[in-house]
Amino acid sequence: MAGEDRALANGAARIDFQTDPSRYRHWKLHVDGAVATLTMDVDENAGLFEGYQLKLNSYDLGVDIELADAVQRLRFEHPRVKVVVVRSGKNRVFCSGANIRMLAGASHAHKVNFCKFTNETRNGIEDASANSGQAYICVVNGTAAGGGYELALATDHIIMADDGAAAVALPEVPLLAVLPGTGGLTRVVDKRKVRRDRADYFCTIEEGIKGKRAVQWRLVDEIAPNSRLEARVAERARALAATSRRNGDGDGNGVALTPLTRSFDDGGVRYGFVNVEIDRGQRIATLTITAPEAPPPADIAGLAAQGAGFWPLQVARELDDAILHLRINEPGIAMLVFKSHGDGATVMAHDDFLEANGDHWLVNEIRHFWKRVLKRIDVTSRTLVTLVEPGSCFAGTLAELVFAADRAYMLIGSRDGDNRPPPAIALTAANFGPYPMSHGLTRLESRFQADAAQLDGARDKIGEALDAEAAEELGLVTFALDDIDWDDEVRVFFEERTSFSPDALTGMEANLRFVGPETMESKIFARLTAWQNWIFQRPNAVGETGALRRYGTGERAQFDMTRV
Amino acid sequence: MAGEDRALANGAARIDFQTDPSRYRHWKLHVDGAVATLTMDVDENAGLFEGYQLKLNSYDLGVDIELADAVQRLRFEHPRVKVVVVRSGKNRVFCSGANIRMLAGASHAHKVNFCKFTNETRNGIEDASANSGQAYICVVNGTAAGGGYELALATDHIIMADDGAAAVALPEVPLLAVLPGTGGLTRVVDKRKVRRDRADYFCTIEEGIKGKRAVQWRLVDEIAPNSRLEARVAERARALAATSRRNGDGDGNGVALTPLTRSFDDGGVRYGFVNVEIDRGQRIATLTITAPEAPPPADIAGLAAQGAGFWPLQVARELDDAILHLRINEPGIAMLVFKSHGDGATVMAHDDFLEANGDHWLVNEIRHFWKRVLKRIDVTSRTLVTLVEPGSCFAGTLAELVFAADRAYMLIGSRDGDNRPPPAIALTAANFGPYPMSHGLTRLESRFQADAAQLDGARDKIGEALDAEAAEELGLVTFALDDIDWDDEVRVFFEERTSFSPDALTGMEANLRFVGPETMESKIFARLTAWQNWIFQRPNAVGETGALRRYGTGERAQFDMTRV
Repeated sequence: MAGEDRALANGAARIDFQTDPSRYRHWKLHVDGAVATLTMDVDENAGLFEGYQLKLNSYDLGVDIELADAVQRLRFEHPRVKVVVVRSGKNRVFCSGANIRMLAGASHAHKVNFCKFTNETRNGIEDASANSGQAYICVVNGTAAGGGYELALATDHIIMADDGAAAVALPEVPLLAVLPGTGGLTRVVDKRKVRRDRADYFCTIEEGIKGKRAVQWRLVDEIAPNSRLEARVAERARALAATSRRNGDGDGNGVALTPLTRSFDDGGVRYGFVNVEIDRGQRIATLTITAPEAPPPADIAGLAAQGAGFWPLQVARELDDAILHLRINEPGIAMLVFKSHGDGATVMAHDDFLEANGDHWLVNEIRHFWKRVLKRIDVTSRTLVTLVEPGSCFAGTLAELVFAADRAYMLIGSRDGDNRPPPAIALTAANFGPYPMSHGLTRLESRFQADAAQLDGARDKIGEALDAEAAEELGLVTFALDDIDWDDEVRVFFEERTSFSPDALTGMEANLRFVGPETMESKIFARLTAWQNWIFQRPNAVGETGALRRYGTGERAQFDMTRV
Repeated sequence: MAGEDRALANGAARIDFQTDPSRYRHWKLHVDGAVATLTMDVDENAGLFEGYQLKLNSYDLGVDIELADAVQRLRFEHPRVKVVVVRSGKNRVFCSGANIRMLAGASHAHKVNFCKFTNETRNGIEDASANSGQAYICVVNGTAAGGGYELALATDHIIMADDGAAAVALPEVPLLAVLPGTGGLTRVVDKRKVRRDRADYFCTIEEGIKGKRAVQWRLVDEIAPNSRLEARVAERARALAATSRRNGDGDGNGVALTPLTRSFDDGGVRYGFVNVEIDRGQRIATLTITAPEAPPPADIAGLAAQGAGFWPLQVARELDDAILHLRINEPGIAMLVFKSHGDGATVMAHDDFLEANGDHWLVNEIRHFWKRVLKRIDVTSRTLVTLVEPGSCFAGTLAELVFAADRAYMLIGSRDGDNRPPPAIALTAANFGPYPMSHGLTRLESRFQADAAQLDGARDKIGEALDAEAAEELGLVTFALDDIDWDDEVRVFFEERTSFSPDALTGMEANLRFVGPETMESKIFARLTAWQNWIFQRPNAVGETGALRRYGTGERAQFDMTRV
């Protein structure tokens, strides 16, 4: 389970990433025309684990799961919303960041995965702004410290009260001997472009920076006296709404993200189109995705009628939930094996539908959602393997799972005693643009760094059913194996791979998966996260006399002063 | 000291980064016209520490110090050399990488700094190829495993014997539960552009890849049967020499890198122009650089006459040695404080001389050497502070120490009782191009990401003496302080900073210093190194039952299989 020392609150058996506004304990979502307000008002007695209180609008993973849900629903259920105002429901405190007692008692694996998820949520806010025309405004009415300021950093525009008290701060280094956990260091210098020596000063003072200096140093966008604060927020919201390119005005309530149909048992999780089989002995989870049985709807009205049952949307939601569940609730699983089942032609037809209707706001949302699900897979610290077998349907969007995998194996021909035809992979336009990785390249661009002609060669084959030999020749799979070798090769690989040190695999995969350039987003998952993970296990932070453990005890932390 | 469990061999008091070919124990440097041969023939009984033997051409830091020295001398002392052939003096083994017993017994700080230095040496090889017209060929006559293959990866062209035995391998993950320590993962996919799934396979097999597959997968450039190997090497060397742009043919033996004049005592190190004062109580080392007393030579002949005594070259060598010494031998020092002393006008005159003669091979070498020294400072995990005080000479090249620092403080006006004039900073062309950081931007470009106009503003001031207020206005220093505040502000900063967790500072500084893009080189020091450091302290690698400790004992490592 996730916590080393802690039990989940209320006897929960697992951490659940599914929620909806009616169940929120920590956030209020209010929509008024083009402007939504997302108010953080953390219930200090509703922590995810036992053993701590979420004081001063501090958060744990449970709080962030609600935020991620709200950000997602704003995109799908609120086509008219063009501006989201993030604010606090508490007096004189915006948010004091991740709860320190929660961090001090959490396992290393939980801390790392908690930060990964909060990073994905902040990236999701920026993605909504960049790709859905939903601009985010943050109203800092009091202290925005650590993760609180990092949440502000993810928004487009930070307005801070100029009352001599409200301040932004990243006090992790001086106070806790760790790094800000959710992209703060990177966003300060790379997004807000605070001069690096000023950032150094800012990140080493506990009290933070307020007033005019916060604006001069680019830490916030504007300050306003409390008497003018609300007027400024409204003014800024109107201005941002006026320039938004969101075009869902006519579509009322959009698509309701109805509860997923799921059932958990010891052997896995069953969704509608996604099935997760967990083999704890082998330490392998197999995710099988089933193709749609019907062709795509004829038009957008047909899509609207299907709602959350539209195959691409439902599969994305199910896959997202499955990945998050496996990451946080099943840390003993070493490998995710992707399989698929069904008719590749209907998968391709759905891709074609999405491609043909790419300008529609809902189709746009679905494609960006798939992009984010695939990115989540890219940064998942488990070995990713895709098996392309008879009966599979790795076409277009689903073929991205072939290219996201650390390795893909494809069967040549049929299997003895199996009368299904040999497997094929098919490419669609979806493999050549809409799903970039966090470093900005598509998986195929990243794969074919050595020779751009290979990318052109693959593009020439769009729509064709590619058998194992063709796929290997084009460089789309790692190994094509015939029936004689398949079982042994795959078995030996699985056995060997799951016997290796999981730490070394995590580091190796994190390096090999991201070929080529880095972006701010990928820097957060790379340079920043890796250093942070390093620090998160150092005795100076988490040891008996470390700063995380000593925080709030009245005793000073004691450090080994060796510089590494 | 560097080793936790180990004493330095032969009772040495410190690790010395100075050597010369007459003292090499592990390498032979042979020059024949335009082609030099660097033969690795490790003396297994000449390890840097006691307690291990360097079998099978495995290496420790001492072996790499010799390699770094040879690469450096090839650039300065061998202007006619256009091609360097790296090969092994052993039969059937090229190099088996970093010595595992050395790693297993080394402190975390030593491992990390060992890898940092070997990375810098490999980057230096690539820098010689890119900027000195010295192409490197690697002859893989047998096993090139781990760091052995990483050395090959740093060269321009890898020729491997096709004899059924010679192979390249990165077996760290399956064998040792750590990552390749010297850029291997990054170079495999980003430099050699091996497809990522093939890289995954390659990095998880112990035995490596040989023969045709090694060429097809881009792991080596060519293979040749032993009977044809020498002819192929000679042929390739001739071809590379023919296209080299090195233009030092007329200059015979170049500039001899004569031994540095140094004296160590408990309080520091004294060089000719660089003085290092160590205050162990405060955990601060102060590096003071003295300006030249004389103007630069009139012409290149005058430069040649000065040789290694030419001020820019001597200071670069002294500063490089001082930084390396502090890194590895003084891990308790938290902060490097840079000061300077002398006439800024003569510093600028030397910059102007270098700028005017930039096409000359030796001037080119000196400028690229300064670039590398400054890069070494950028990746040094100590807080970097520059104090700009009366009597200082932070002009041009030396002003880069102001911009490399995490913070720079500059005095406004004079100090009470000090009749020297107020300090000034001056910019030269050297601040706008020749010294890019590892991520490709100059320090000023990186500093002024928010507004390119600030960069233009600084460029407009080239040659002017900028007092503290002007420097602060231009954004060149962090804080300008007057005499009343100076002592207290600086003292409080030093006291606070050195009280923080060194781990958190290392991570924070590594993130804030590199604003903006990443390159292959910066990815190695960021994404790769940070993950590697993380893994280097995990029990699965270094614990009692970890793979590094268990290697060679006949007992299998035992892992905590939790995925993080």
